[in-house]
Amino acid sequence: MINIVVDMMGGDDSYKITVPSVEKFAKENKDVNLYCIGTPTYLTKLTGLGLPNLFIIPSKTVVKMDANPMSALKDVDSSLMVGIKTLIDNDYDAIVSAGSTGALLSASVFKIKRISGIKRPALTTSLPTTKGDKKTVVLDLGANTECSAIELEQFATLGSIYYSIVYQENRPSVAQLNIGTEEEKGTAVNKEVYTSLKNNKNINFVGNIESREVLNGLADVVICDGYSGNIFLKSTEGAIKAMSTLLKAAFKKNLFSKLSYLGVRKSIGEMKEKMNYKSVGGAILLGVNKVVVKAHGSSDEKAFYSALKLTKTLVGNNIVEKIKEEISK
Amino acid sequence: MINIVVDMMGGDDSYKITVPSVEKFAKENKDVNLYCIGTPTYLTKLTGLGLPNLFIIPSKTVVKMDANPMSALKDVDSSLMVGIKTLIDNDYDAIVSAGSTGALLSASVFKIKRISGIKRPALTTSLPTTKGDKKTVVLDLGANTECSAIELEQFATLGSIYYSIVYQENRPSVAQLNIGTEEEKGTAVNKEVYTSLKNNKNINFVGNIESREVLNGLADVVICDGYSGNIFLKSTEGAIKAMSTLLKAAFKKNLFSKLSYLGVRKSIGEMKEKMNYKSVGGAILLGVNKVVVKAHGSSDEKAFYSALKLTKTLVGNNIVEKIKEEISK
Repeated sequence: MINIVVDMMGGDDSYKITVPSVEKFAKENKDVNLYCIGTPTYLTKLTGLGLPNLFIIPSKTVVKMDANPMSALKDVDSSLMVGIKTLIDNDYDAIVSAGSTGALLSASVFKIKRISGIKRPALTTSLPTTKGDKKTVVLDLGANTECSAIELEQFATLGSIYYSIVYQENRPSVAQLNIGTEEEKGTAVNKEVYTSLKNNKNINFVGNIESREVLNGLADVVICDGYSGNIFLKSTEGAIKAMSTLLKAAFKKNLFSKLSYLGVRKSIGEMKEKMNYKSVGGAILLGVNKVVVKAHGSSDEKAFYSALKLTKTLVGNNIVEKIKEEISK
Repeated sequence: MINIVVDMMGGDDSYKITVPSVEKFAKENKDVNLYCIGTPTYLTKLTGLGLPNLFIIPSKTVVKMDANPMSALKDVDSSLMVGIKTLIDNDYDAIVSAGSTGALLSASVFKIKRISGIKRPALTTSLPTTKGDKKTVVLDLGANTECSAIELEQFATLGSIYYSIVYQENRPSVAQLNIGTEEEKGTAVNKEVYTSLKNNKNINFVGNIESREVLNGLADVVICDGYSGNIFLKSTEGAIKAMSTLLKAAFKKNLFSKLSYLGVRKSIGEMKEKMNYKSVGGAILLGVNKVVVKAHGSSDEKAFYSALKLTKTLVGNNIVEKIKEEISK
């Protein structure tokens, strides 16, 4: 059996979306035990189901989305911290939360702890690309503001293992996010990483990649420090949102354009869905001793369900053990 | 009279676009002398016009777009380097080039030189926003990979002067690009800049801005180091391009969607134009002793013309003198 702890109270819509997601997932995945942490009055729907793989564990408070990560650690009655304790005390496999990223990161680093040999864990996500269903995995997205060369090299290993599990690709290609493609571009750290990865036979390193090319799916895995990753991700998000706003305005202009919209509504919906990185199932903190999945704060039922599914895939493929093995080499 | 040196040979389409742009601009701006540097055989059209404000100055070679900046400096017969020499020897006001950014930057720093007191010059551009015609000015975009706090503070001054000249706004708002809006976010340098600018009465500092908000026009001027600026700009470009690609595919899907396209073609064209930062007239290197304008490498006639117009505005408003004055305070 796979054992997943679920923070039922995190996220903008909290139990309103986690309850139906968990219900659907529990019914469809009898090989997974779900330990649902939350305020019991909000979880009566789940209790009533009488499913053998659903367990309700009560908590009293909720960590706010903008909570200070370090003070969140002290809120031991919160759904997040009860969840972390449940995970550790019982040696379960994974935790999923749509709550505060900072609090989840801090709790993971301080309580679940880094895998021995890992310098820094990395927040990792899959992004859509213009190449059909192909996804590109990017890390770190903000767990580490500044990174050393050795840390970035470890991200290459973490990202490769993650990509090979989730997308069944044996030797995924890894590129370094940089301000130019040439070997001598970027900071001193960028140059050091380039040289090391070029000589690292365990990594299929394909060189530097500029941020404008990431969504074209030229590399399977893109590594960067958390600062650049955050700038990249949020710039992409901002540009897509700006385009959507203008597109909406364009279609509203007159009756003819409003009618035109009907002809492409479905396609535009598909496009938006494709470019909506929030729908891919959340971000993963790679490099700690358990599977930690951060569902997006604004997750809907589908997104939270995807996060649960992704968690099962990662646990089922022993990602933590694979990382341990690779790092100990 | 305003005296502008024009590198006729730079850019992907070189003299094919610079010649008609210069012709139009020379005819419409009798108060500007244009010193056109290039291979004479390609400039016969201009010679034949007999305009009193057009001067042809021959050069022999062309700096390649991907040239090594330092070796480009040694190519003294190139249109760029003849242009730089013409500018300096005659104490003209400005140079415009669509050629290699790196070569233009190096030539500017080493030959035109920094304004006394300026630590580093900054590559600056205006970006479109979702707020109607409002533009946001971002600097640095890649001239300086890493920046100290004092350098970033100077960018705030440079950007404010630029914005007030180009957009007639007396006290433009300045924000620092960062991975969060709170004062304590980001690197040690980010925190230092935040504190200094908060206490700087000459700057209308409005705090940190996340990259997802820049295109919403929340600040007039956004400052960042060249690395982050480059990641931001190219991520935005990549996301817009990816959306355009998918949008095109959406409209091509079937006959109905093809017909739909007719109803919004104009609006979509306007949207693309709005989001095309290349159309705003290029980037400016702020902080050197002359006005240096870098037209985009893929400039068309209109873009190169905009670059010339912007150059005239900056010279006409004495931007270099205004920067000198502000920095000496």
